[in-house]
Amino acid sequence: MTAPDPSLEAAETAFRDVLAESPARAAVLLVDVHPADAVEWLRDTEDRDRNLVFGAMPPACQASILEHADEALTQELIAPLDARLLTQVLEELPSDEAADVLIEADDRVANDALERLSPDTADALRTLLSFDPESAGGIMATDFVVTQPGERVGDVVKSVRKGADDIESEVGVFVLDQQRRPIGYLSDRALLTHTIHSPVEDVMCAPFMVAVDEDQEGVAQLMAKYGLQSVAVVDDAGGILGVISAEDAAAILEEEVDEDIALLIGVGSDQLQTRLPILVRVRQRLPLMGITVVAGLASAQILAIALGHGSEDGGGGVQQAILRYLPLIVGLAGNVGIQSSTIFVRGFATGEVDEDREWPVFFTEWVVGTLIGALCGVATWLVAGLIESRTPGLGAAVGFAVFAAVAWAAMLGGVIPIACRRLGIDPAVVAGPFLIALSDVSGSAIYIFVAREIAMR
Amino acid sequence: MTAPDPSLEAAETAFRDVLAESPARAAVLLVDVHPADAVEWLRDTEDRDRNLVFGAMPPACQASILEHADEALTQELIAPLDARLLTQVLEELPSDEAADVLIEADDRVANDALERLSPDTADALRTLLSFDPESAGGIMATDFVVTQPGERVGDVVKSVRKGADDIESEVGVFVLDQQRRPIGYLSDRALLTHTIHSPVEDVMCAPFMVAVDEDQEGVAQLMAKYGLQSVAVVDDAGGILGVISAEDAAAILEEEVDEDIALLIGVGSDQLQTRLPILVRVRQRLPLMGITVVAGLASAQILAIALGHGSEDGGGGVQQAILRYLPLIVGLAGNVGIQSSTIFVRGFATGEVDEDREWPVFFTEWVVGTLIGALCGVATWLVAGLIESRTPGLGAAVGFAVFAAVAWAAMLGGVIPIACRRLGIDPAVVAGPFLIALSDVSGSAIYIFVAREIAMR
Repeated sequence: MTAPDPSLEAAETAFRDVLAESPARAAVLLVDVHPADAVEWLRDTEDRDRNLVFGAMPPACQASILEHADEALTQELIAPLDARLLTQVLEELPSDEAADVLIEADDRVANDALERLSPDTADALRTLLSFDPESAGGIMATDFVVTQPGERVGDVVKSVRKGADDIESEVGVFVLDQQRRPIGYLSDRALLTHTIHSPVEDVMCAPFMVAVDEDQEGVAQLMAKYGLQSVAVVDDAGGILGVISAEDAAAILEEEVDEDIALLIGVGSDQLQTRLPILVRVRQRLPLMGITVVAGLASAQILAIALGHGSEDGGGGVQQAILRYLPLIVGLAGNVGIQSSTIFVRGFATGEVDEDREWPVFFTEWVVGTLIGALCGVATWLVAGLIESRTPGLGAAVGFAVFAAVAWAAMLGGVIPIACRRLGIDPAVVAGPFLIALSDVSGSAIYIFVAREIAMR
Repeated sequence: MTAPDPSLEAAETAFRDVLAESPARAAVLLVDVHPADAVEWLRDTEDRDRNLVFGAMPPACQASILEHADEALTQELIAPLDARLLTQVLEELPSDEAADVLIEADDRVANDALERLSPDTADALRTLLSFDPESAGGIMATDFVVTQPGERVGDVVKSVRKGADDIESEVGVFVLDQQRRPIGYLSDRALLTHTIHSPVEDVMCAPFMVAVDEDQEGVAQLMAKYGLQSVAVVDDAGGILGVISAEDAAAILEEEVDEDIALLIGVGSDQLQTRLPILVRVRQRLPLMGITVVAGLASAQILAIALGHGSEDGGGGVQQAILRYLPLIVGLAGNVGIQSSTIFVRGFATGEVDEDREWPVFFTEWVVGTLIGALCGVATWLVAGLIESRTPGLGAAVGFAVFAAVAWAAMLGGVIPIACRRLGIDPAVVAGPFLIALSDVSGSAIYIFVAREIAMR
């Protein structure tokens, strides 16, 4: 099923054909597609068509699409909606998802939409919005079933049936005391396997609770460690405010790991987005490339001080000056190479970069790397040229070598993982130290031959 | 709850106090502890005591412990069990977990244990063991409830109740045709919310299936994408062989991401294990450090060829020779630094490195880094000394600088993430390019001052 599914591909082709003629008819096709697939198709659709298709769908389908869309896509999809249309979508969404959608909406439209909702729903949403979006309060759902000791399993099952359309599924039922503090938990499976006459206090197990201001990563760790289907979110007094499902917790762990990886390779705290515009990706990476440039220039100065700044004017002095910039060149090239290769390795692992998207992603990644190489090249040309004015041509040699070595490393960082996958080798095996080693050797070679031509004539 | 839980810490202290006197009494205490916590306590217990405690527990508790233990701990815990004791544990485990335990057992004991099990159970386990452990067949469970069209919800609920103790929970029920091919799926929630008189074909939804030889990562991606509670694993003819739960799929995604990260930073394909013996960790990292050493030596040779090997015998020639080894030094130091910092960032994120373990893990990580530095230092000393015999002392300077720069980078790689967490800064922000930049500058400085002292006198 993870190899491209032929029937799914045919459906997408049909969708694109219809879309070219009539977005309204394409919207009808999307209604029968799993929202997780519909989201992927919409992501690969041009802005104007995407908005036309989404606008032509019934609110319930729009809601399922938004439940599967990431933040960036949600923002784009709801941007054209006015308060009336947004309200219709919000009414179809569970509370936690509705709050996530509201965060992405224009403030004025969001406020108007809240006014149009029923006061209870609006109050619940305002409360959810008041919590830090990365805390337990920011991710919990407020639609859930509770029960009290003294009730019987049959009563609980009736409550679940009554609320079935509106409540978060798969989270079971919490048993509360008089102060609405969780004292027990019943999974759906427990409700199924006990007779309807069993008192809930006889069949419930111990509930797990988290504080409303607990960090979302901590909540997700807790749920993964104990294999929980759900946790109750409680206020300072221990009263229940909401519930978090295992599915939401798993999504958070994925999100957090992508954020950590993105930060570790210095591509900004955003997720490893291969669909962002090229210039946005360049801008996100520049600050940390700046650190590498500054460090490289600092290394060159430390070496100059230790060895004596251009102590001779012969070939030895020029050679020494050239070699001082080696750490800068290989450092920058290694950085960009590892950024590209990591983005591919993760993209393969999450399925974001499937076989169809390999080469388009390769091309945009390579352009991003090359632009970064060009910008860092110009910067180092100017600064190194100024510092090393006694060695004419050295600044130009450093700048050009930065550009060439970085563009080359960006190419290796894409080609190597793609080739590995084609050959059936795990790309992660080769995309790390092996890639850096290759990039170091080739970066050194590129630099030294460039420098010899430009600065040592 | 993720901040150290005082009652849990007190319970662990009590456990350790009792353990010092009587492992058997400590085993009794463990019975009331959540197995996820018991596993952590046992992991931090000395081998001999651990085996005594585990051996004194009833088989059902041993089984829950093994369900939460990783492969390495499972192997250690079951090593002292004979076939009779192992059989008792296997009987308490769901089929997929029992197969995972058997994989870690000594072959002879495993075979004896299979002989002692009921023929049905043994056959099911032998079949599971015949699949690739990283495929759908290797991770599926074979204990599940199925139904046929024509049955009613009430009948299905009865089957679930009857099998409750033995079946994989939270996976719902698949509806099969005459050839045992899945044609529908009923979640626990669907069984709860429909009346017992509903025919299953009216309330079932479409089932998701994967082939038995599908890669486990593909299965986990599919389940995450569509938010599935379970998938059916089918043979070539489409007949059901087993089921995979969302919880198992989430665990696989975590495992795969840790494996990818471990490979990307070159610490072997094992998970990011901070509890492995120091020498095992050194051995796992050496092959990829070797690649970095070879690449660094190759860079030095390329530079020598491009610039002319020691064209002068004055200070310029020595300086050139020294500078040619810069990429080697900063490359090795950067590698080791990023290995340590990534291990901390992931350890914080997964909860493996909690506040109690920060300094012990720092110390072992630093020893690992320093040993690697020493080994690479000796290797480069010999090789560089041989290659650069015309520059006396250069080999020693390179070797000593490798050792010093790598040991220093290993220290930075631990101290920086720990300090960040203490200061409330996200460690991942600083542990990537910033750390490498710092390691590059300080590595260059360490090397050049060492080289000046040793080789330029």
